[in-house]
Amino acid sequence: MDKKHQDLFIRTVLANWNLAIGRITSVFDRQSDADLLQPIAPGKNRVVYLLGHLTAVHDRMLPLLGFGERRFPHLDELFITNPDNPQAAIPAVAQLRGQWAAINQLLTEKLSALTPEEWLAKHESVSAADFEKEPHRNRLNVVLSRTGHVSYHHGQLALLKL
Amino acid sequence: MDKKHQDLFIRTVLANWNLAIGRITSVFDRQSDADLLQPIAPGKNRVVYLLGHLTAVHDRMLPLLGFGERRFPHLDELFITNPDNPQAAIPAVAQLRGQWAAINQLLTEKLSALTPEEWLAKHESVSAADFEKEPHRNRLNVVLSRTGHVSYHHGQLALLKL
Repeated sequence: MDKKHQDLFIRTVLANWNLAIGRITSVFDRQSDADLLQPIAPGKNRVVYLLGHLTAVHDRMLPLLGFGERRFPHLDELFITNPDNPQAAIPAVAQLRGQWAAINQLLTEKLSALTPEEWLAKHESVSAADFEKEPHRNRLNVVLSRTGHVSYHHGQLALLKL
Repeated sequence: MDKKHQDLFIRTVLANWNLAIGRITSVFDRQSDADLLQPIAPGKNRVVYLLGHLTAVHDRMLPLLGFGERRFPHLDELFITNPDNPQAAIPAVAQLRGQWAAINQLLTEKLSALTPEEWLAKHESVSAADFEKEPHRNRLNVVLSRTGHVSYHHGQLALLKL
């Protein structure tokens, strides 16, 4: 596989990442701030919980991929550690929308700058010894897995209109 | 990127595909045939519709990826062309479970045999002229996209237990 093909491999993976993010973002964008406070189905998570949850999970990708410090670590308690609680105070929806856009822009910039070898280098949650035995625990795997995570929650949001 | 790295790239993509299928299959497996006739949320698709839908979509991957003729084209009418209709006669759930397993086993075998160049070759729904302009419309893209499609519906199934 020559350089052109390597680039194409990575470009295809990145296009898929961007597509998944673009699709779910347009669902969020079509909804008013008040809509986001509705549950995706009776008794289930509110849309805003998914927005905060995805933002926190993507923010965690920064240290995991070796891209530096987290920007929004305070989101974890509300949107990862705990289940959705409509009684809890949450940040303004507009602020969450902005953080979701910001973290994805930053990740996409950083990912676009990786070389093929860097895509296949180990991520930060695996030890060098384990990586030796499990070489698929690389950056590519993290991005594929998080792309799937976006689609997983997009499927839930789609129930709003079915 | 040497041969070892190329293989790792592809192995990571295939591991992700297999993981997504394994996860949703274990949701289907945990449910009785009667459970599968329940909707994923009030007024939404039944679980069996998602099982048939995913089987039909994966069956369509055979000709799309140049892997030969479809096995279960009769599924399209019930599970792709039309929305879920609890009044319509559908195949036995046990038969659908078997077809889901069979199509995924076949696809994974065929995918495992592709060379890196074959992963990046055009799929069958794009013309040679369009592929020239849009080289990301390759087999890899189809597999990434269908992996996301599995996760999308897995997210919906997860609502059953939340």
